[in-house]
Amino acid sequence: MTESTTHPSINVGVYGAAGYTGAELIRLLAAHPAVRLVFATSTQDAGQPVPGTALTYLPHEAADPTSVDAVFLALPHTASAPVAAQAKAAGTRVIDLSADLRLDTAEAFEQWYGAAHPNPELLPVPYGLPEIYRAAIAGAQVVANPGCYPTATLLGLYPLLAAHALAPGAPIIVDAKSGVSGAGRTPKASTHFVEVFGNFSPYNIGRVHRHTGEIEQEIARLDGQAGPLIFSPHLLPVDRGLLATIYVTLAAPWPPAGLQSLYEETYVAEPLVNVLPAGQLVTLRHAQRLNICAISVTPVTATHVVIVSVIDNLLKGAASQAVQNFNLMFGLPETTGLL
Amino acid sequence: MTESTTHPSINVGVYGAAGYTGAELIRLLAAHPAVRLVFATSTQDAGQPVPGTALTYLPHEAADPTSVDAVFLALPHTASAPVAAQAKAAGTRVIDLSADLRLDTAEAFEQWYGAAHPNPELLPVPYGLPEIYRAAIAGAQVVANPGCYPTATLLGLYPLLAAHALAPGAPIIVDAKSGVSGAGRTPKASTHFVEVFGNFSPYNIGRVHRHTGEIEQEIARLDGQAGPLIFSPHLLPVDRGLLATIYVTLAAPWPPAGLQSLYEETYVAEPLVNVLPAGQLVTLRHAQRLNICAISVTPVTATHVVIVSVIDNLLKGAASQAVQNFNLMFGLPETTGLL
Amino acid sequence: MTESTTHPSINVGVYGAAGYTGAELIRLLAAHPAVRLVFATSTQDAGQPVPGTALTYLPHEAADPTSVDAVFLALPHTASAPVAAQAKAAGTRVIDLSADLRLDTAEAFEQWYGAAHPNPELLPVPYGLPEIYRAAIAGAQVVANPGCYPTATLLGLYPLLAAHALAPGAPIIVDAKSGVSGAGRTPKASTHFVEVFGNFSPYNIGRVHRHTGEIEQEIARLDGQAGPLIFSPHLLPVDRGLLATIYVTLAAPWPPAGLQSLYEETYVAEPLVNVLPAGQLVTLRHAQRLNICAISVTPVTATHVVIVSVIDNLLKGAASQAVQNFNLMFGLPETTGLL
Amino acid sequence: MTESTTHPSINVGVYGAAGYTGAELIRLLAAHPAVRLVFATSTQDAGQPVPGTALTYLPHEAADPTSVDAVFLALPHTASAPVAAQAKAAGTRVIDLSADLRLDTAEAFEQWYGAAHPNPELLPVPYGLPEIYRAAIAGAQVVANPGCYPTATLLGLYPLLAAHALAPGAPIIVDAKSGVSGAGRTPKASTHFVEVFGNFSPYNIGRVHRHTGEIEQEIARLDGQAGPLIFSPHLLPVDRGLLATIYVTLAAPWPPAGLQSLYEETYVAEPLVNVLPAGQLVTLRHAQRLNICAISVTPVTATHVVIVSVIDNLLKGAASQAVQNFNLMFGLPETTGLL
Repeated sequence: MTESTTHPSINVGVYGAAGYTGAELIRLLAAHPAVRLVFATSTQDAGQPVPGTALTYLPHEAADPTSVDAVFLALPHTASAPVAAQAKAAGTRVIDLSADLRLDTAEAFEQWYGAAHPNPELLPVPYGLPEIYRAAIAGAQVVANPGCYPTATLLGLYPLLAAHALAPGAPIIVDAKSGVSGAGRTPKASTHFVEVFGNFSPYNIGRVHRHTGEIEQEIARLDGQAGPLIFSPHLLPVDRGLLATIYVTLAAPWPPAGLQSLYEETYVAEPLVNVLPAGQLVTLRHAQRLNICAISVTPVTATHVVIVSVIDNLLKGAASQAVQNFNLMFGLPETTGLL
Repeated sequence: MTESTTHPSINVGVYGAAGYTGAELIRLLAAHPAVRLVFATSTQDAGQPVPGTALTYLPHEAADPTSVDAVFLALPHTASAPVAAQAKAAGTRVIDLSADLRLDTAEAFEQWYGAAHPNPELLPVPYGLPEIYRAAIAGAQVVANPGCYPTATLLGLYPLLAAHALAPGAPIIVDAKSGVSGAGRTPKASTHFVEVFGNFSPYNIGRVHRHTGEIEQEIARLDGQAGPLIFSPHLLPVDRGLLATIYVTLAAPWPPAGLQSLYEETYVAEPLVNVLPAGQLVTLRHAQRLNICAISVTPVTATHVVIVSVIDNLLKGAASQAVQNFNLMFGLPETTGLL
Repeated sequence: MTESTTHPSINVGVYGAAGYTGAELIRLLAAHPAVRLVFATSTQDAGQPVPGTALTYLPHEAADPTSVDAVFLALPHTASAPVAAQAKAAGTRVIDLSADLRLDTAEAFEQWYGAAHPNPELLPVPYGLPEIYRAAIAGAQVVANPGCYPTATLLGLYPLLAAHALAPGAPIIVDAKSGVSGAGRTPKASTHFVEVFGNFSPYNIGRVHRHTGEIEQEIARLDGQAGPLIFSPHLLPVDRGLLATIYVTLAAPWPPAGLQSLYEETYVAEPLVNVLPAGQLVTLRHAQRLNICAISVTPVTATHVVIVSVIDNLLKGAASQAVQNFNLMFGLPETTGLL
Repeated sequence: MTESTTHPSINVGVYGAAGYTGAELIRLLAAHPAVRLVFATSTQDAGQPVPGTALTYLPHEAADPTSVDAVFLALPHTASAPVAAQAKAAGTRVIDLSADLRLDTAEAFEQWYGAAHPNPELLPVPYGLPEIYRAAIAGAQVVANPGCYPTATLLGLYPLLAAHALAPGAPIIVDAKSGVSGAGRTPKASTHFVEVFGNFSPYNIGRVHRHTGEIEQEIARLDGQAGPLIFSPHLLPVDRGLLATIYVTLAAPWPPAGLQSLYEETYVAEPLVNVLPAGQLVTLRHAQRLNICAISVTPVTATHVVIVSVIDNLLKGAASQAVQNFNLMFGLPETTGLL
């Protein structure tokens, strides 16, 4: 066909393609004009057809990461890095959706994940939040795709962090709520319909959830004087969507209009971040099934602000952000296949 | 206390006490004025406290069915009958909530459950639907507690079956919908919140669901000329409740008021069956968290009727009906602990 | 751009654009390559922006149906026909999503809707179910878009009706379940979250729901010997999706494979109807947020069959089917803007 | 009967008995051993039967508050105080579930409710949170029943406030989530099933929700040095239940065990407040359909604590707390009819 010659055809493989994130990756990549999907792996569903494609799931070990131009890794932590290392050695680009490459050091990984890092030689790699680290991602061979909570939190905080507007040392409080798909596709007591239906549950609150370390690492990189993170995730009885209500203290009083302008100007050129007009509040609906982050800013006092940030945990919180990183890494328009 | 001497104190054990049905049994029995709860078993939760009691779950094999006056068996099929046999041999009364004793013959059991019956010598036992078989249950040592779908269906059909009002040979169509707790507490892909949320799914429709045999056995006992059952269960995205929409053909025209009277008169003295006034329709809410069956009758043509019957699948469809049978077996007022 | 010159640009207006169906129409038409959206009306939301467009809602009476090439009418019954008449007189094509033009005669309308027909001179018009009446729709100036329940039911029955396979006079039983968006956007006690959550409710069962007349009219047109319809709708606690479980009796025994082939062959060339492979059952998920109808066929006995048919009530049950009709009326490829 | 002579028989009327709170009041009072329910009002449902009783709803103006010993007022704000005044003048005791009597002054009422107080001569009255103000309630003729958010928040904060443990001036952040029944029974766009299903929405966040003034008033009474409240309510897609995640800063470091002990000791004798063991977190399920408040305490750093507090918004957040106050006012055991 004439059309295919005008697009580069990039050969791509997806590991862990049968999970909730993997399925969204497959859906996005199958429709991506520059991608040729070469393989999709799932040990559990091996041999079954991959929906929306002509492929069949391969067992992980039957796939060859060196046979493609890029791999997306939607694998459990510690399982992902070895595949990344193998791919990198062959010159294959890697977008890693696991936690393996998000923390800069093996020590930090061991602290938060309770396991030795399988491939410390890979660290550090660019952190794949394009709205903040676009330049580093563009030239990278390996990128760590951020966690869902970190994505919503950091995009919500970024304008204030970049402006060094936060009161040094004051705690940053993130009260976050996620739909159940964030817990993965493997059936567990905690994801049984009867346990979740009509319920709402905090879990791992304070400073114990694994995303705490990831968020603090990035906060510190942007504003070394920012205070500690207090992070309270909750399980929402919905299938998808993630909302973070973020409470911060400013170093000095800001007029409300100035805050609103700060956010609007920071993201004015970002196609995948929407800042709502002053006075409006985001809800899950603003981001569900969309590839965007939506943010609202609510001044409370002259020095206290509430930011609400929403994403679809499977999209901007995982799969669509991975495609955004892929586009950057290959020099494609950043929103190819995403708008 | 004076009061405790006026009640017989019946020692009771519950097998499979940590499942959804078992938990409801424990709740009902712990508040039952004539019951002393002696043990509760759960192999999976062994050693943990039994909510609302001073007990700890025992592994099944650590419990002694001969040490109590009665046992409730909320065990998987083929695991239940051997315990029933052991208890019966010791003179312990048995309320079996599994499917093991519901079908009259080992052949029927093997046909519908695809396994040899472990204790064919126990068969048949009275079928524990008190509104129909009260007399047989009262004198029984072992009773088979009906399935949830059979309970709603048979109570919905009983007045017409008893009156021999159905057109001989005409199919009886039962379109049934059940909440997810009917699928049990073990996590499975089909009970994952993300799979069920916002969805609605038929399963095992036609004549393949295991309850088909049980329902047809009881229909035939009540009206030997009734036609075949077509039974279509669906999974509802709610935690509990079961609604059966039942379509029947009458042998001869009935006036609407006559049908309504037939139902009202059949159940006038039944404390646990509510017939709604003519023109009203039952919904899940009429029975959720209640120990009753609620029924509405809608004449469609002179010879076609739609009956809607609702229960809480865990209560009148399982645990509270088991207590109702227990009360009958021990000569207690039938609704003791249930109103 | 070159591309825009190759498409005819059809000027379109939408009445009732702020309801659930209207909003889906706007979304589909705004992305339709051959459509220029000229106005959208909503008396209640007049003056507010129309999401996803540069328009503002007009009050109904401020719109001019004669100023456009086509109007979509998502108005209440009896409000729609007068606008259709005005548009028709001006040569504007009309896709009417109300019930006003679905029944062939004013008498039938009055029987089912309890009101005199406002514009009997318009009747009859082609019934906009393209998979059945494609030829008549293609040449029409005015088309009646089918109701949601009729769409799912008739596509589920069509292969058997067209084959004259049903037992003459035998009742056709449709046990249908619809998400809450089918009840419209106006807040009512019956659509209050607290009333619906965790509940499941039959309503208007038997032969009293208004869609009964519409379904029977079309059944009779396809098979004059088919028996009466028994139609039981239920309200599902989900936002969108509609599933009909359909029970029919065959005139003569059919082998299961023959039934499956009948359905597959009937719809083999239909891009918007999916017949599932034998042994699989459709669920709401097969059609939610999609422009299709999905069908599964389950033989029960040699002469009894259960067909399950699902649609998104707002799409194939309303808005996307309206666009499908629009495409046919204007000689565009039938799935333009729908795949 | 003998029994009735041992209980005082208190004649009671309920205003606004058909709303969600009113219905729970009726349910609790109908089963209360010391209560004779004399009337129940609902202008909208006037003439219809009151479920679970032999009464019929009266229009508000047809009820006589001076004919009973006590009235419960579940009326809108500004409609409630005039009835309270009329009842008080006749010596009838009043439990007011509206907001009219919660704030100590007419000025505060006008500030938060944007309306002149209809009966400023009634203010102030005891604030009906029995665990804090039991003594004042016991002797009162009129009591203001707290709001749902204030109940969960204040019981969660009370041990720290009473111990003067909070850092003076440090903000108290309450991220609260409520089920939809908190929005009342009147259908509105914001309570339409389709708008709420699968969604999650912040509303009135910061310092604008009306309960802010009520909570701050009571905080200040308990600890005059406590900092400002930042209060962010969110609408949860569940029917009932309310969870508040509360973030506080301590004046000095506390050992985790000390905090846990503080909470356990504060509430050790309270039958309607449960403090979870250290390390466990409350969920909505801990309080749904129960008359209690359940609390968990999570130390984060030496000086930062997260308290999670849950209630059923219709029970401990409204109706059962009103009965608790009623019991205190009449010298009955505080949990009569509640356990």
